[in-house]
Amino acid sequence: MGMLSQREFKADKKKNFSEWYNTIIYAADLADVRYNVQGFIVHKPWSMFIIKKIYSLFEEALEKDGHKPVLFPLVIPEENFEKEKEHVEGFSPNVFWVTEAGGEKLKRKLALRPTSETAFYQLYSLWIQSRSDLPLKLYQSTNMFRFEAETNPFLRGREFLWIEAHDAFATEEESKEQVGKDLGIAKEILLQHLGLPVLIFKRPDWDKFPGAVETYACDCLLPDGKAFQVATTHLLGQNFSKPFDIKFVDEKGGKHFVFQTCFGPGIWRMVGALVSIHGDERGLVLPFSLSPVQAVIIPIPRKASGSEKLLTYCREMKKRLEKKFIVDLDDSEKTPGYKYNEWEMRGVPIRIEVGEKELKEKTLTLARRDTRERIGVKEGDAEERIKDTGNSIFQNLVENAERELKENIRSADSREELKKMVEKGGFVKLELCSLESEGKECADIIKYETGGGKVRGTLYGENQKPAGKCIICGKAAKAVAYVAKQY
Amino acid sequence: MGMLSQREFKADKKKNFSEWYNTIIYAADLADVRYNVQGFIVHKPWSMFIIKKIYSLFEEALEKDGHKPVLFPLVIPEENFEKEKEHVEGFSPNVFWVTEAGGEKLKRKLALRPTSETAFYQLYSLWIQSRSDLPLKLYQSTNMFRFEAETNPFLRGREFLWIEAHDAFATEEESKEQVGKDLGIAKEILLQHLGLPVLIFKRPDWDKFPGAVETYACDCLLPDGKAFQVATTHLLGQNFSKPFDIKFVDEKGGKHFVFQTCFGPGIWRMVGALVSIHGDERGLVLPFSLSPVQAVIIPIPRKASGSEKLLTYCREMKKRLEKKFIVDLDDSEKTPGYKYNEWEMRGVPIRIEVGEKELKEKTLTLARRDTRERIGVKEGDAEERIKDTGNSIFQNLVENAERELKENIRSADSREELKKMVEKGGFVKLELCSLESEGKECADIIKYETGGGKVRGTLYGENQKPAGKCIICGKAAKAVAYVAKQY
Repeated sequence: MGMLSQREFKADKKKNFSEWYNTIIYAADLADVRYNVQGFIVHKPWSMFIIKKIYSLFEEALEKDGHKPVLFPLVIPEENFEKEKEHVEGFSPNVFWVTEAGGEKLKRKLALRPTSETAFYQLYSLWIQSRSDLPLKLYQSTNMFRFEAETNPFLRGREFLWIEAHDAFATEEESKEQVGKDLGIAKEILLQHLGLPVLIFKRPDWDKFPGAVETYACDCLLPDGKAFQVATTHLLGQNFSKPFDIKFVDEKGGKHFVFQTCFGPGIWRMVGALVSIHGDERGLVLPFSLSPVQAVIIPIPRKASGSEKLLTYCREMKKRLEKKFIVDLDDSEKTPGYKYNEWEMRGVPIRIEVGEKELKEKTLTLARRDTRERIGVKEGDAEERIKDTGNSIFQNLVENAERELKENIRSADSREELKKMVEKGGFVKLELCSLESEGKECADIIKYETGGGKVRGTLYGENQKPAGKCIICGKAAKAVAYVAKQY
Repeated sequence: MGMLSQREFKADKKKNFSEWYNTIIYAADLADVRYNVQGFIVHKPWSMFIIKKIYSLFEEALEKDGHKPVLFPLVIPEENFEKEKEHVEGFSPNVFWVTEAGGEKLKRKLALRPTSETAFYQLYSLWIQSRSDLPLKLYQSTNMFRFEAETNPFLRGREFLWIEAHDAFATEEESKEQVGKDLGIAKEILLQHLGLPVLIFKRPDWDKFPGAVETYACDCLLPDGKAFQVATTHLLGQNFSKPFDIKFVDEKGGKHFVFQTCFGPGIWRMVGALVSIHGDERGLVLPFSLSPVQAVIIPIPRKASGSEKLLTYCREMKKRLEKKFIVDLDDSEKTPGYKYNEWEMRGVPIRIEVGEKELKEKTLTLARRDTRERIGVKEGDAEERIKDTGNSIFQNLVENAERELKENIRSADSREELKKMVEKGGFVKLELCSLESEGKECADIIKYETGGGKVRGTLYGENQKPAGKCIICGKAAKAVAYVAKQY
């Protein structure tokens, strides 16, 4: 089913990331892009397992934080969109419209949700009446639809998967606290479970979510040096509660509009980041806890015909290890070398080699996917050593990713430096006049001069203070900002 | 959030099922139908929990049977539909079409999937090449879209939730075996986990899935006497593999079209059946293993102000019971009676009443949702007695549902009897000339004379032999069939 053998796999991650990436998606059997509608991919079992895992990590964290699951309709009537001016302007160029059904033209167009504020908030105005209805914290795990020009599996699609959490509060303070909680959830899962370090930015005023007061986002760094947004959370203030009339009555009978936030962990994009950041020249490298198969047993019979004793030992070992891990046994007719390549391509963290020597000595040879190091293990210690090796692989992935990110944050003191550094890839730190609307002109100059470098914003929670002048216009700098090309 | 108190709840399930049903959906906080697009409902947390449970039961069973999860695009181009003639004729009256995106008209229309044969099979022709690619057994858990005239939450919707499993085999025999496995999975989960007995029919030739060779379906009986289809499986033969060119090469180099099946457990409809069949005049009644809250603790303080000691005891009990069950403690300001009504409406199987007497004697009073019986329990036995009570409630639900179904299967020997019995509701057994196309005329007469009674088919696996004549046309009967009005 679409596997490409290691021998045919020649793409170089560093030199040609895009070719490498698209080959991996196909060769590791994550998705099929041959479906006959652009930007709509077929998700195969290998990626579905990972997607479900990431979904459950976020769902569990959101529920622990007091959210409950809901499911809103896929379609949103045009009139709902038009209630918030910036929102409709921001999204309408990217909307798919349903206009016909049952052989007739519909009386009004229905959008495939590009995001669901205008679906949720219509009901929030019915559900929220008194102080005791607040906070209201709900999420849904769904597909979304945006008519994007360029598409790439798990990076940018016309259909993609995410979670959207929509929260409503009585006070502005609580809504601001929620933004911090959202970012904490995203940062922790990304680092502790996916092994992906992120930079968290407060986006510039001109790059906010349409309708938001403030937008915060988690950016990964992809191997080609571009920033890649994987989660966002928005402080919506009362921008939606006013047009949607979401009010509560306080203890004294006074009516108040609620303060809202919305949080969008980009589950689909996280798969893209996972593939890109941890993968290597042999294929995927998956964190132990996220892999559809954690360890694969490969029997290495002396004769091509195989030895029944060896196979029996492997089968018993599989049965035993399955009590603790997700284990597969590859007893197909292929050669051991061919099998090594296939399972490496799929990113399985640990390969367990069992030959005549291992059978005789009651040992196993563990091969790590990341370093390709081989470790001899006594049969009795198998569970413990597999667990330790899984942890060690994960630590190694995190360290590599953190080093890669750190090494690609540079500081520019001049336009020339900025240009060179953006060219090189990664994030470039610099001082800017402003990230409010008056700074937009300088950001446009940066984008033009660097061939696409975008101001990502200021680092969240770091409170970095500018000391000098805007490197573009020379006015006193009000912000320490970061620039990067982006996906 | 939309709770209706028991005191306001007056609908009578037997006399006015439709009113009862729609009140329950709202009052038990399962869904909100006030979204401004007909037939698209908002699923609330209480139903989401049940939906997720039912999904995981089926997903687990399908994976155990060798299926793997995938996710195909929501949209299907018009040209795919047109490949199978009966299929496009059967579905096109009900399709929603996306015709615009990004401010422009699309070059070709895209259907919101009403079912995904024509999406899956395009890829199956690429994935299936050799004998070793078979069997191919994949499923997806998704929403579906059909432009239905009448809509009702969890009964018939324009957007609804289901699973579709699409299997391909080298031989016809294997495909027929799969149909039996599918029906076994559906029957077991419905009865053993949802407590819903079904009749399984082979549908008449004129009522098959468009494009199928044979269609089998599980019908529940709703309280108003109508049959309600909750799962179907179809033998597709080579009807799709030929137009979609899905072939494999055998050992000798010969090319063969695959044999296919597709299975559709109607997750969404199962919620509707669960609500309808187990519910009573006080609201929902949920099986212990499917309830979002399995037991709710209600403190009953002697004074309205409450007793701190009592609350502490309740909190400790919650903490302890939570290790084994999903437990809630309702320590809100409402009166105990009000709380009883609310939690009964939501169908929570066990209420745990804790008053001063229980506190003093170190006991608990368990109240069963189904029989409303109260059981005194020693504190130390709580876990065991809750578990037993949960099981006993489930057994009782199953017995009631089975009796209700059995009592509503009647036999008719004449047109007059048939008419009266269909009027009464339930299934009517009768002998018919044929369930092949030549029997259609008699079925039409039945439908007309009984005001909507439809021939559901012959009972699967029972091999019932007709002994007499068709009660409509008088020709020799070839089938023992069942007639019922339907949803």
